[in-house]
Amino acid sequence: MQISELVQRSGVPLASVKFYIREGMLPPGHTTSATRASYDDAHLHRLRLIRSLTTAGGLPLSRTKKILAILDAPEGSVADMIRRAVAALSAEAPDESDTNVAPADAYPRARAAAEYLGEGYDLKLPAAAQLESALRAVEEAGIPVAPDRLRVYGPHLRAIAEAELSGVPVADPVRAVEFSVLGTVLYEPVLAAIRRLAHQNIAPDRAG
Amino acid sequence: MQISELVQRSGVPLASVKFYIREGMLPPGHTTSATRASYDDAHLHRLRLIRSLTTAGGLPLSRTKKILAILDAPEGSVADMIRRAVAALSAEAPDESDTNVAPADAYPRARAAAEYLGEGYDLKLPAAAQLESALRAVEEAGIPVAPDRLRVYGPHLRAIAEAELSGVPVADPVRAVEFSVLGTVLYEPVLAAIRRLAHQNIAPDRAG
Repeated sequence: MQISELVQRSGVPLASVKFYIREGMLPPGHTTSATRASYDDAHLHRLRLIRSLTTAGGLPLSRTKKILAILDAPEGSVADMIRRAVAALSAEAPDESDTNVAPADAYPRARAAAEYLGEGYDLKLPAAAQLESALRAVEEAGIPVAPDRLRVYGPHLRAIAEAELSGVPVADPVRAVEFSVLGTVLYEPVLAAIRRLAHQNIAPDRAG
Repeated sequence: MQISELVQRSGVPLASVKFYIREGMLPPGHTTSATRASYDDAHLHRLRLIRSLTTAGGLPLSRTKKILAILDAPEGSVADMIRRAVAALSAEAPDESDTNVAPADAYPRARAAAEYLGEGYDLKLPAAAQLESALRAVEEAGIPVAPDRLRVYGPHLRAIAEAELSGVPVADPVRAVEFSVLGTVLYEPVLAAIRRLAHQNIAPDRAG
């Protein structure tokens, strides 16, 4: 297809398409003449991925690029690629880490919380860093998370995460990474909305 | 205490404190002389609430004001106050709504999802509007939520919401509203971080 059709089908403005090509995020079209290039479904797919991450997911360009780089140079096991791509989502992501385990003296709130969350909550970066920030914020607001609450959160969120990961198409590494990254970012608002809907339905019984 | 001590103890800059007073978000101090005013723990508490909502919670000023207005003029049942305050958190909140139930022809994705979420998921605004946006985003990204996934999410998130609401201090309406609003906003990042931690712990087994 010509670039005009790519623009129309993706809904991404021409200037943005050109920007993504210049930035190396989208491969250039296949040259068909001195002034023309053609684009295919892979371009369309990549454009949609970029937009999902940046617009719907609110990811900055730098982290979007990191994720695209992992997709463009598949290396290591699927699990390792997923781990690196999902890590790149986090603002708290350490730049490079040989080990993926948080140092024993770091993230004291997250470390204490992990005890109550139960089985399967070893403190791993960058989620540990993210949990530490979130726990600090509730503590500063005067509503720290009680151990009993963590004992409820742990198994329920573990079950949710299990169901989510069982849906990852592991046979195709690139698709598996895309799926994991989009799922992590775009499903958070879905879960948040369902939780709020539950609150709204329960509130009148509880506090009425 | 003098305003300097209020600034120091709250960590909120003097210019911001003065701004909040001008905007009617923080009551003025008690006048002690022509040039002096004194502040008490209620001022400190209010300042911390404002900062939690705006800084940690990322809430815009307009919605923060709406919530403070509900706290400053308690009216109706505790459940009703909580409902209005939590509704004011949402970008999708309708300006005024006599009924809290989504119209039958609106939010088709949320309506379809509610079927699979199970018991206790009647479609109520504004969470229904929020769910609709979140579902549209995952659909546009090519990873729509499958019914089976919703069947997992429903009961687990309902259990989480139940535990959360059982902790609301209903005896004190103002405190109950503050608690509900802060809990809704500031616990979302906690839950998101725990889910990511679970993903990181499961991923190697699943996809390795």
